[in-house]
Amino acid sequence: MTRAPRLSPGAPAPATADRLTAGGPSEPGTARIAVDLLGGDDAPAVVVDGALRAVRTDPALHLMLVGPIEVADELIGALDPAQRARVTVRPVRTAVGMADHPTAARGESTVRTAVQAVRDGLADAVVSAGSTGATVTAAALGLGRWTGIRRPALAATLPAVEGPVVLLDVGGTLEPGPATLARHALLGAAYASVAHAVTAPRVGLLSVGLETGKGDRLRRVAAPALAAAPLPCDGRYVGLVEGYDISLGTRADVVVTDGFTGNVLLKAIEGAYAMAGGPPSRGGAPRAAALLGVGGTVVVCHGAAGSEDVASGIALAAHLWRRDAAGTVRALLADIPHDLAPDRHDTEVAP
Amino acid sequence: MTRAPRLSPGAPAPATADRLTAGGPSEPGTARIAVDLLGGDDAPAVVVDGALRAVRTDPALHLMLVGPIEVADELIGALDPAQRARVTVRPVRTAVGMADHPTAARGESTVRTAVQAVRDGLADAVVSAGSTGATVTAAALGLGRWTGIRRPALAATLPAVEGPVVLLDVGGTLEPGPATLARHALLGAAYASVAHAVTAPRVGLLSVGLETGKGDRLRRVAAPALAAAPLPCDGRYVGLVEGYDISLGTRADVVVTDGFTGNVLLKAIEGAYAMAGGPPSRGGAPRAAALLGVGGTVVVCHGAAGSEDVASGIALAAHLWRRDAAGTVRALLADIPHDLAPDRHDTEVAP
Repeated sequence: MTRAPRLSPGAPAPATADRLTAGGPSEPGTARIAVDLLGGDDAPAVVVDGALRAVRTDPALHLMLVGPIEVADELIGALDPAQRARVTVRPVRTAVGMADHPTAARGESTVRTAVQAVRDGLADAVVSAGSTGATVTAAALGLGRWTGIRRPALAATLPAVEGPVVLLDVGGTLEPGPATLARHALLGAAYASVAHAVTAPRVGLLSVGLETGKGDRLRRVAAPALAAAPLPCDGRYVGLVEGYDISLGTRADVVVTDGFTGNVLLKAIEGAYAMAGGPPSRGGAPRAAALLGVGGTVVVCHGAAGSEDVASGIALAAHLWRRDAAGTVRALLADIPHDLAPDRHDTEVAP
Repeated sequence: MTRAPRLSPGAPAPATADRLTAGGPSEPGTARIAVDLLGGDDAPAVVVDGALRAVRTDPALHLMLVGPIEVADELIGALDPAQRARVTVRPVRTAVGMADHPTAARGESTVRTAVQAVRDGLADAVVSAGSTGATVTAAALGLGRWTGIRRPALAATLPAVEGPVVLLDVGGTLEPGPATLARHALLGAAYASVAHAVTAPRVGLLSVGLETGKGDRLRRVAAPALAAAPLPCDGRYVGLVEGYDISLGTRADVVVTDGFTGNVLLKAIEGAYAMAGGPPSRGGAPRAAALLGVGGTVVVCHGAAGSEDVASGIALAAHLWRRDAAGTVRALLADIPHDLAPDRHDTEVAP
């Protein structure tokens, strides 16, 4: 495996958030990305188009196309002969549908095969725009979960007025308990530092007001758990934050919430940009997010992803692999005592 | 009491949503609004300024100022002598702070006195930018709740690409059960028709995807309850909707969610508009919402309301009173059998 040298957390990644959104120059190092050709509402067309964009933009990118051979052939046929050497195919005909139960990912499917390729060392990362629940299930089963992280989190990075904001969870774990929110605070602080070079990340818990005690039962129990969480990378808990803070970035660099709220929020911000006449110049709401807490690099694209979104998801996966983000975040968390109580309030990943 | 004639639901209210945001010409009929001078982060200054704007804009508006006499005096002193006749004062020195428990509203306070003025027929509506929990508590205790509505809902009307969208709840009931969400669907449909002249309102349940079964436990149980709810005003349930739909309005006119999610969403949309360079021309996220389910007209302004927000909250209260929105919505719901099971999952209004 070719891998870029490990970067220490906090090392500068020039204009990372902007680059991920806009698709700028690529970082050095080969990255082999397994792409689920059948994931997403508009698959395979937009996935093919997105993969083509990604291959043409990043000369060190290799793709493993997981899906029907004829779809892969169409993609390969559209490439210059020199680029074709960077594409391989894993023929699979079955996909998990958006309306299927996530456990369908246990059977033969494009997303499961893509995850297995990472497990077997044949690819460095997975990108899918299919059902989030199915991808989370396939990744947790195929790659395992980190010690102390029972519930993975999907982390989305939003351009904000005062710098990028990492919002998590945006749909990995719809119904976390307070201990899971505290663990996600650790994940978010480490991820902001490693993936986006945020120094001493400020971590806030999303609620309906800033004053101590504001919120529902989950937030009232979670707030002291976050305050007590040993945040890595000189992270510090700044208390409760509100909905504005996600797009402002004034109070926090990392905003922690449950996967249900995070998912509807991310889409609401996207809708607001549409209402405002288009996304701001620094980029709109991202349509690709990193799955944290599983043993590998996994990027989930929005089900309604367009080809640009798929391309930016592939670029994000390559970026995370090249920085060894998953390994570094995992190592940062391994240094922290896992004496937090198990979270009995958690429920299984829902569809 | 002077009251505008009762309007049948669905009767046109010209450009209502725009008018509420922009502050256009007022509707006929005296409206006597009790204003909580001490409610809000920047009270009393912004409340005084907002009340001045409202009095000057709407010649049929009467205000009852509830708060310290010297604050009321300052406001009255700033008015033309002819306008002063439309202002009365109820001296109260104690307010419920933003960090206080909502039950503090049971004691002597500006918001409680304002609610009592409505109960006693001395005012037609209440406007407060104080703690939402305290206002909901004061209103539920002082004015009573409608039959069949155990948990009031705060309804905010957002300008959207395809017409106004009523989002509820935005913070009245942070942790509703499924039966409460179904009741809020009824409230929302009636309110969209009565207050905003939406014909045959389409009602959606906010979730993380459109496919049946998407969402957390609450959404999975609530969806069939909403599908079975006898929506008034020819309303119909359109199934699950997503975050985008709040600012797009393509799929639904009424979006139902829990008060926690609705509150953070509304503020996230406001933050997104700030990031996008300012609110869209048709108006940004509202900072005043109607409390539905209590026996009177109550408008809650955002804690961080500015003077324009307070003025638009007063205008909204006058509009709702002149249309007899509370009475009409209540009557529409009274026609519907209350055989829905009581909601054991509900919890008390939280701070």
